Amino acid sequence: MSLPAPIQNLIEAFSRLPGVGPKTASRLTFYLLRAPENFSLDLAQALDELKSGTAFCQKCFNITDAGREVCAICADEERDQGLLCIVEEPLDVLALERTGGYQGVFHVLHGALSPIEGIGPEDLKIRQLMSRLGSGEVREIILATNPSMEGDATAMYLRGQLEGLDVQVTRLARGLPMGGDLEYADQNTLLRALAGRQEMD
Amino acid sequence: MSLPAPIQNLIEAFSRLPGVGPKTASRLTFYLLRAPENFSLDLAQALDELKSGTAFCQKCFNITDAGREVCAICADEERDQGLLCIVEEPLDVLALERTGGYQGVFHVLHGALSPIEGIGPEDLKIRQLMSRLGSGEVREIILATNPSMEGDATAMYLRGQLEGLDVQVTRLARGLPMGGDLEYADQNTLLRALAGRQEMD
Repeated sequence: MSLPAPIQNLIEAFSRLPGVGPKTASRLTFYLLRAPENFSLDLAQALDELKSGTAFCQKCFNITDAGREVCAICADEERDQGLLCIVEEPLDVLALERTGGYQGVFHVLHGALSPIEGIGPEDLKIRQLMSRLGSGEVREIILATNPSMEGDATAMYLRGQLEGLDVQVTRLARGLPMGGDLEYADQNTLLRALAGRQEMD
Repeated sequence: MSLPAPIQNLIEAFSRLPGVGPKTASRLTFYLLRAPENFSLDLAQALDELKSGTAFCQKCFNITDAGREVCAICADEERDQGLLCIVEEPLDVLALERTGGYQGVFHVLHGALSPIEGIGPEDLKIRQLMSRLGSGEVREIILATNPSMEGDATAMYLRGQLEGLDVQVTRLARGLPMGGDLEYADQNTLLRALAGRQEMD
C-alpha cells in the first residue's frame, strides 16, 4: 500500500530531525492524524516563526528576538562585562544560566573545530571574539567548550590565539559529576578527577 | 535567561508529541535553528497539509487521499472482497500490507475497547462494520486486533456481535515471534505457544 502523499511527506520531514528514525517519524505522523487539528497547525506555525522571529545577538551571537541588536544578557548592565564565558552553542548558555551561578557575559562560537567535519576556525565566531576583545574590557575568559575531542581542540586553539593578550584564561573544572557513582565513571573522567585532586579544607 | 518566544513556542509544540520530553523538544528546536531554513519550512508545510490532504475511506476507514471516496485497497478489484481483516489502526493495515501475504480487504476500528479510557463500542467503527456486513459479500473475518488486554476485549466483543451471521470468524495466531529466543519469551507468550502447539508435517 502506498501512503497518501501528505502522510509520506510528513514522515520524511520528521525523519530529517536528529534522533528521529523512520519508525518514530511514522508514529508521530499517525499520532497527529488522530490528534485535534490544532496540534499539527500549532506546530506548523511555531516552525514557520522559528527563523523569522529570532536573530543572533550581534555581540555574543546568542539567540535573541528578531529586531534586537543585542541580547538581554549583553544589554544587562548588572552583568560583569569583564568576565566572558565562551561556549559552543546557545543551549550551553541556557545550561549555565540555569545554574544561577554565573554573572558574566557569553560568547557563542556556534560549533567546535572538527577537521573530520571540515569545520575550521573561520567557520566559528572566533574573528568576532577577537575583535570584541580589542576593547580591553574583558578581564577573564572562561573556556567552556564541551569536554570532548572537538571541544578540547577548540579550547587549545583559542588558548593559542589569546596568548599575548592581557587577559586571564581559565576553563571549567573536570572531575566526577555530582550524584554520579565512582564505579560507573569512565576511565578518562577518573584520570581527570585524580589529576585534578584538591586539598580538602 | 528567558528564551525568545518563537523558540519557547516550538519547544512547547514539540513537547506535545508522544515520546518527546522537554529535553528532546529543545534539542530538536535548536537543531532546526542551525539547520537550513527549508528544513523547518518543509516540516511546517507537511504539517499544514496533513489533515487537509487526507481523508478516511468511507468503506474501510483506512486513511486515503483527500477527495477519494474509497481507498486504493477497497477500490482494487483484484483483492478478495470476501476476506475482511479487522484492525485497530491505519498503521496496522500498513504492517499487514508490508508482509505481501494478504489479498483481502480491511476494516479499521480506530481504537480498541477500553473501559479505563472510556472508549466504548460506539467510539469505534463497529456500527459501520455491521452495516458493511449486511451485503453478505464477506465470507471470512480475521480479527487482527492487538495481542493486548484492550485488543483481546475488542475481539471478544466483536465475536459476540458477529454470532448468528453466516461468516467464519478467525484470529491471528499467537505464539513465539520469529527470530525470538525461547529463554526471553514472556510467560503468557509461552503459555499461548504451548496451548496452540501444532503437529509437524
